[in-house]
Amino acid sequence: MPHPPTHATVGKHAAGRVGDVRRQNLALVLGGIHRNGGVTRARLAADIGLTKASVSSLVADLLGAGLVREDSIARDGERGRPGTGLVLNPARGALAAEISVDHLAVGVLDLAGDLLFQESVERRNRGSAPADLLPLLVEMTGRAAIAAAASGVELLGGELTVPGLVDAERNMVLAAPNLGWTGVDLSTELPGLLPGAPFGVSLSNEANSAALAELWHGHGATFSDFLYVSGEVGVGGGLVIDSRLYAGPQGHAGEIGHMVVHPDGPRCACGGRGCLEAFAGQDAIYSAAGIEQEGRRMERLLERLADGDEGAVSAVERAGQYLGIAVASTARVANISAVVLGGHFAALEDWIAPALCRSLERYAPGLIPAGNVAFSGLGQTAALVGAAATTVRRILGRPYELIS
Amino acid sequence: MPHPPTHATVGKHAAGRVGDVRRQNLALVLGGIHRNGGVTRARLAADIGLTKASVSSLVADLLGAGLVREDSIARDGERGRPGTGLVLNPARGALAAEISVDHLAVGVLDLAGDLLFQESVERRNRGSAPADLLPLLVEMTGRAAIAAAASGVELLGGELTVPGLVDAERNMVLAAPNLGWTGVDLSTELPGLLPGAPFGVSLSNEANSAALAELWHGHGATFSDFLYVSGEVGVGGGLVIDSRLYAGPQGHAGEIGHMVVHPDGPRCACGGRGCLEAFAGQDAIYSAAGIEQEGRRMERLLERLADGDEGAVSAVERAGQYLGIAVASTARVANISAVVLGGHFAALEDWIAPALCRSLERYAPGLIPAGNVAFSGLGQTAALVGAAATTVRRILGRPYELIS
Repeated sequence: MPHPPTHATVGKHAAGRVGDVRRQNLALVLGGIHRNGGVTRARLAADIGLTKASVSSLVADLLGAGLVREDSIARDGERGRPGTGLVLNPARGALAAEISVDHLAVGVLDLAGDLLFQESVERRNRGSAPADLLPLLVEMTGRAAIAAAASGVELLGGELTVPGLVDAERNMVLAAPNLGWTGVDLSTELPGLLPGAPFGVSLSNEANSAALAELWHGHGATFSDFLYVSGEVGVGGGLVIDSRLYAGPQGHAGEIGHMVVHPDGPRCACGGRGCLEAFAGQDAIYSAAGIEQEGRRMERLLERLADGDEGAVSAVERAGQYLGIAVASTARVANISAVVLGGHFAALEDWIAPALCRSLERYAPGLIPAGNVAFSGLGQTAALVGAAATTVRRILGRPYELIS
Repeated sequence: MPHPPTHATVGKHAAGRVGDVRRQNLALVLGGIHRNGGVTRARLAADIGLTKASVSSLVADLLGAGLVREDSIARDGERGRPGTGLVLNPARGALAAEISVDHLAVGVLDLAGDLLFQESVERRNRGSAPADLLPLLVEMTGRAAIAAAASGVELLGGELTVPGLVDAERNMVLAAPNLGWTGVDLSTELPGLLPGAPFGVSLSNEANSAALAELWHGHGATFSDFLYVSGEVGVGGGLVIDSRLYAGPQGHAGEIGHMVVHPDGPRCACGGRGCLEAFAGQDAIYSAAGIEQEGRRMERLLERLADGDEGAVSAVERAGQYLGIAVASTARVANISAVVLGGHFAALEDWIAPALCRSLERYAPGLIPAGNVAFSGLGQTAALVGAAATTVRRILGRPYELIS
C-alpha cells in the first residue's frame, strides 16, 4: 500500500502540482521579500511587473507555506497608501553541520540569515571512519533541532560541509585526505541529520561554504571577484567571480592548498609534492614553529609570536611567502585581483599579512594591490554559516516545494 | 553637415533600425544555416519554431546583406518536398593579423571557416615600437584584402592578436612584456588594418585566440574543459570551460606562463620571479640546450634531440617538468582535467610529453590522466585562425549590422 504523502516527500510530489510560471513567480515574490524586508504587496507588484491580484494570490501561498509573515504596517513612500509589510518568516530556518579535521559543529540560521544556535565540539577526526562520526553528528543536529524548536523555529533543510572534494549530486565525499576518506557515499546518512526535512540535507565542500559566507556576509560587499583561502588543518579555497562561486566543471575549483609552490617540497596527503598545504596548513606552521604537542596550539603560537619568538615568527613568515606564491599563480591563471584569508590565516593576520604582501610583490608585482588583501572577520563559523545560508537560498529559490 | 551613413558606420546607425526581436531572429536563422549548411527554409522554420513566412522574410534580408547564398536543391528527409538549400556566403570573410615576438602574420577565413589566404614574415619584434610594426602590418593586410578581392571575397571585419594582455573594449595592449609594450592604445591604428570594414577590427590576446582555434577546429571536439597552453617565445594559455573560453573578470585568465613554478627561479620580463616562461619558453629552452645564435633555432634543437644530445634532451625535459607543475596547479585551482599543448610544445611533443606526464604524476597523481594530455595539430596558424574565427562569430552573431 502506498504511503500517504508526508512532509518529507513533498519535494518529489510537488513537481507536478504548481505550474512552471507560477513556480517562477512564487520565487520572484519571495526573492523580492528577501531583498526588501517589510515590502508591501503593492510595491512587490510594481517591482516585479505583476498585477496586485497575482501578487496577493502568490503571497497567500507563501503565507500558507509558512515562508513569509505579515509584519507591521508599511507605507510605500511618503504619499503611498499604507499596506501590510511582508518579511521572511523568522520561525523557519536551515541547519548546517560541519566535519572538520579538529572539530564537529552544527548551527541554525533563520531565513533572514541570522545565526540562532551554534555548537562546536573539539575532536581529532583524522582517520575517523564515517561510521564513527555520523552518530556523533546526529546527536548534535538533534540538539540543534530541539533548540530551534524551543525557539519556535522549524528547520526546513540542511547541509553537511566537509574538508574534501564532494560530488553533491551523488552525496559522495570523493576525497578528504586529512580525514583519510576516499569515495565515501553518504546517501543513507545525510537524511538522518534532519529527518523529515522537506528540503533534505545536501553535501558541500568546507572551503566553498566558507567562501560563500564571505561573499554573502563578509568582504563580498567590497569585492565582486576574489579568491577566498580557507586555513584549517588543510588549506582550501573558493573562487568568487562576478559575485558568484565559480565551482569549475566538477565543482572542485579553488583547491589552492594543493597548488605546487616548491618543486622539491615534501610529499602531501593528496599524493602530490610541494603543495601549499605542506607549508601553510596549521600542522605545517605548528611543526615549523616547534609546537609539537596537541592542545591549545594556536594559543601557544600566538603567545610565542607576541613574545617575538624567532622560530614562530619565521614559521608564519614562511607560510606567508608560500601563500603569496599560490595566490600570485591563481591571480595569473584565474585573473583574480583580490584575496580574502580566513581560518588560521585570519587569526595570524598581524604576522602573516606583511610576509604575504612582500611575496605577492616579489612574484607578481602590481597584480594584487595591498588594499586587495583582506582577512575574514567571520571566524570559526564561516563554513557553518555558508552551508546554512546555501540551504536558505535553496529554500528561497524553490518555495513551490512546500505548496501543493 | 552630417555625413551620410557609409558602410563603415553601419554598426552604430543600424542600432535603431531593426527591432530587437527581428535582430534576434536574424541571428537565429543565420546560426541555423551556420550549423547546418544546405538547410531549407522549411527545415529552419521547424527547427527554430518560427513560421515559414517569417523565415523566408529573414532569409531575404540575409541574402540581401550578402551573408547567405542559395545553394543546390535540398530535400528535407526522404519524403519532404524539395527546397532550395541555404549556405553561408563563401564570398564573405574575415581578416586576422598577428604580431608575434618573432613574426608578423595575416590570414583570411571565409564565413564557413576555411583559411583562404595566409602570409607570415619572420621578424625580430622584441623592442619594436608599435609605430614601427603597424605600417608593416598594414602592407600585409592590404595584400590580404587584395588577394581576397581577387578571389571574389569581401572582408567584413578583422582581429589583431598580440602576445600580451589586452583591454579589448578600449583597444589597448595593457602589457606585452616580450615586445616591451606597456599601455599601448591602438584605437587609431586598428581600423587602418581593414579600412571601411563594417565590423571593424578588434584586439585580442594571442593565447586566447589559439585556444579558441583549438576549441572550434581542434581538440575542442574531444574535450569540453581544457587548458590550452600556447608555446611561443612567451608561454600563454587559455581556459576552456564547458566549450567556452573562460576569460576571467578582466579577460586575462589562463596566463599560465607567469605562474610561479620555482620560488628561487630567475627574474621574468613580467617583473615576477620563477615564472614558467623562464623554464619553458622558447628562449629558455634554447639557452638551456646551448643553442645561442639566432636563426633556425627550433630546427637545430630538433636535430640535436634526434641525435640524442644530452644538453638538448635535458633542456626539454626540464621544460616538461615545470610545465607539469604549472598544469597541475591550474588543474587544482580551476578544476581542469585535460590539457592541449600548442606552439613549440607541439613541435617538441615526442621529447616533452613523457617528461610532462611524469611531472603530472609526481605533483598531482591521477588528476590529468595521460589520455587527457593532447598536442595541437594546428601548427603556426592557430592564433591567426582563432582571431579570424572570432571575427566570423562576431559577424554571425550580429547580422543586423548589415541590414537597414
